[in-house]
Amino acid sequence: MNIELVTIGDELLLGFTLDSNGAHLARELAAIGVAVVRRTSVGDEAEAITAAVREALERTGAVITTGGLGPTSDDLTKPSIAAAFGRGMRLDTDILEALRARWIARGWGKTLPKANEQQALVPEGATILTNRHGSAPGIWLEDERSRWVAMLPGVPREMRGMFAEEVLPKVRERLGSGPTSVVVSRTVRTTGIAESLLADTLKPIESHLAGLSLAFLPGWAGVDLRLTSRGRGTTDATAILDAAAAALTETIGPFAYGSGNDDLAAVVLAQLSTNGMTLVVAESCTGGMLGARVTAIPGSSHFFLGGVIAYANEVKTTHLGVGDDTLIKFGAVSEEAAREMAIGVRARYRADVAVAITGVAGPDGGTPEKPVGTVCFALDVRGAVKTARRQMIGDREEVRQRSAQWALDLVRRRLRGDS
Amino acid sequence: MNIELVTIGDELLLGFTLDSNGAHLARELAAIGVAVVRRTSVGDEAEAITAAVREALERTGAVITTGGLGPTSDDLTKPSIAAAFGRGMRLDTDILEALRARWIARGWGKTLPKANEQQALVPEGATILTNRHGSAPGIWLEDERSRWVAMLPGVPREMRGMFAEEVLPKVRERLGSGPTSVVVSRTVRTTGIAESLLADTLKPIESHLAGLSLAFLPGWAGVDLRLTSRGRGTTDATAILDAAAAALTETIGPFAYGSGNDDLAAVVLAQLSTNGMTLVVAESCTGGMLGARVTAIPGSSHFFLGGVIAYANEVKTTHLGVGDDTLIKFGAVSEEAAREMAIGVRARYRADVAVAITGVAGPDGGTPEKPVGTVCFALDVRGAVKTARRQMIGDREEVRQRSAQWALDLVRRRLRGDS
Repeated sequence: MNIELVTIGDELLLGFTLDSNGAHLARELAAIGVAVVRRTSVGDEAEAITAAVREALERTGAVITTGGLGPTSDDLTKPSIAAAFGRGMRLDTDILEALRARWIARGWGKTLPKANEQQALVPEGATILTNRHGSAPGIWLEDERSRWVAMLPGVPREMRGMFAEEVLPKVRERLGSGPTSVVVSRTVRTTGIAESLLADTLKPIESHLAGLSLAFLPGWAGVDLRLTSRGRGTTDATAILDAAAAALTETIGPFAYGSGNDDLAAVVLAQLSTNGMTLVVAESCTGGMLGARVTAIPGSSHFFLGGVIAYANEVKTTHLGVGDDTLIKFGAVSEEAAREMAIGVRARYRADVAVAITGVAGPDGGTPEKPVGTVCFALDVRGAVKTARRQMIGDREEVRQRSAQWALDLVRRRLRGDS
Repeated sequence: MNIELVTIGDELLLGFTLDSNGAHLARELAAIGVAVVRRTSVGDEAEAITAAVREALERTGAVITTGGLGPTSDDLTKPSIAAAFGRGMRLDTDILEALRARWIARGWGKTLPKANEQQALVPEGATILTNRHGSAPGIWLEDERSRWVAMLPGVPREMRGMFAEEVLPKVRERLGSGPTSVVVSRTVRTTGIAESLLADTLKPIESHLAGLSLAFLPGWAGVDLRLTSRGRGTTDATAILDAAAAALTETIGPFAYGSGNDDLAAVVLAQLSTNGMTLVVAESCTGGMLGARVTAIPGSSHFFLGGVIAYANEVKTTHLGVGDDTLIKFGAVSEEAAREMAIGVRARYRADVAVAITGVAGPDGGTPEKPVGTVCFALDVRGAVKTARRQMIGDREEVRQRSAQWALDLVRRRLRGDS
């Protein structure tokens, strides 16, 4: 089955909004074996909507639209698509009553504004798609040749809920129970290894990937590897992807830290839990970003105690015990300073594990010996201290994000027993 | 002038990639008065590309494409669009030499791989668009009726550079020097006021907005107000927008903190600079996020000293001097605890200003008295302490982001002299 998506709204043509609705629908449909063959965005203009939907219907006979179902004069989706079907509009009294009840229940006023009444107008012969997440109902319109358009609202939360509850079951029904080929992916997350080295590492097993496509997706968190299966049924695809992901993970070894959307901070917290250890941080150039990463994970309070944001040198000396002589001799960005930061915060905050970061995030502050992107780390696990120095690429934000990620990885690799 | 955009790539149809290229081009074109009237995304399939570009050409005669110019077999843009023009392909020896030279200069090898040679194939009669940012050259193809297609690469950095340097001048040339109406926007940033209250506040001046459209864009940072002018020349639009933005800002009063992409942390740092003051933080539920926000701003080291991530209660008592009795009597999430955190960190870290945050970020930990989203704040400016308690909406991440923003706003409003 092929589907086209038509997303509606001036915002899309002005570039103010990224079409995340279209992307969401594309992913959801691919996962059940439906191919999205074209995506179109048009503005809040009746003729443009009618034309785009009519053309899409002629190509595939199956169209999902988002946007233009609200109460204002910009919301033209329903009459425009009714026109493409040669249908008129009728007032749906059930919808009108529901809109009124909702309006009054929310305490917004005693009478529904005239503008909202148009939300109760629906194309002749339409099926109403219930909106459990907002006021605008969706519409399913189908012609005598079984060609259909599903109209969803533009608010992402409402659109996603209504798609899952109302549209997906209808699409599945039309797919039937025959063998369906789906597009499914698995992601293996790696960090601490460059894309080119990773590619070399994987070369020997690439031919064993059974026709799966392998994409390298580099970012500040590391390089994600996406395996995609096309043209198989769900059961086959799942089995083949699982085997391939396992093979990749084994070949990559210590650089693979998770799958899917796994967050390295959550992986580290799980290790701390296993080992019954607590963590503290001492952050200079990241300024709290590492702590924010760790505390983003629910339940982190069981293993993360806190730490010191040691941005100024006086904080490093007074509150972490970094020696003035260390700062003079080696500088605040040095493995020596990082070592004393980690030791200092672990002792003072009474934790099992401490990690420290100090670096030159830029854009200023670089020197020939310590250019922008130079970051020093230290890890103190119950008194066993290791330090490292890395050259991070990217702008200020990226250097900081890569540094927080690298610090987490330092903990991860130590706790899994790597050298 | 009307333009259509056609973005090409399987990733777009699978929903793995948001079409940021299309959004960028839409914004850039709107800014010079060119209307993007439709955006289409198709996959890496020759027939689909040919059809989409042909249809777009018939509607507007002006099309920009992105993607499909790389060296692999998936890269079908050039021959597919040549087909739409009824043109053949020829090998461009200049491009081939440039590709070879680049390959060797980068030390990637002595001979250009066969696959890369196809990047030197161009449609008959094409104008080459120089790529100063990567290897794939762009293409400008025009027919005898002056209908044109500009083909740009899909890598955003390359696409943006090539569009600005090679395509924009050609589009401007075609626009001519006559009066052009442009689409221009101004954003006024507000925080600490609900969307509905803001709308009420602005009601009296809405009729004075001279036909500008006003959009309310709520997010965790607050509500941004976007004023948009359509159908005016650049000079008129700029003057009218500036006046309207000033009127909005005055009406909103203390809740307006900036314009465009202004970051509240940068606003606060500028105030600290003006006042010759230093800042420290004590963070519980935000876990370092506030420090990360402040240190994201280059030059923050002049006014931001650091602080304490006080996630565990022992850190609050030992390192900030929060009383055990305070924690027992009022709890860690209380204005009383926040007060002692702020006083403690300011005294110990010797700063002029201290701000403290402690709250229930969720998803667990809520109680009937202190549900998830309850966040307490304290601000200590040279010994004058104020506290506040707020109920934040959203999930864990949003509660934390809103809390960091609100803490910054507490500092901003105090330093601008609000009560």
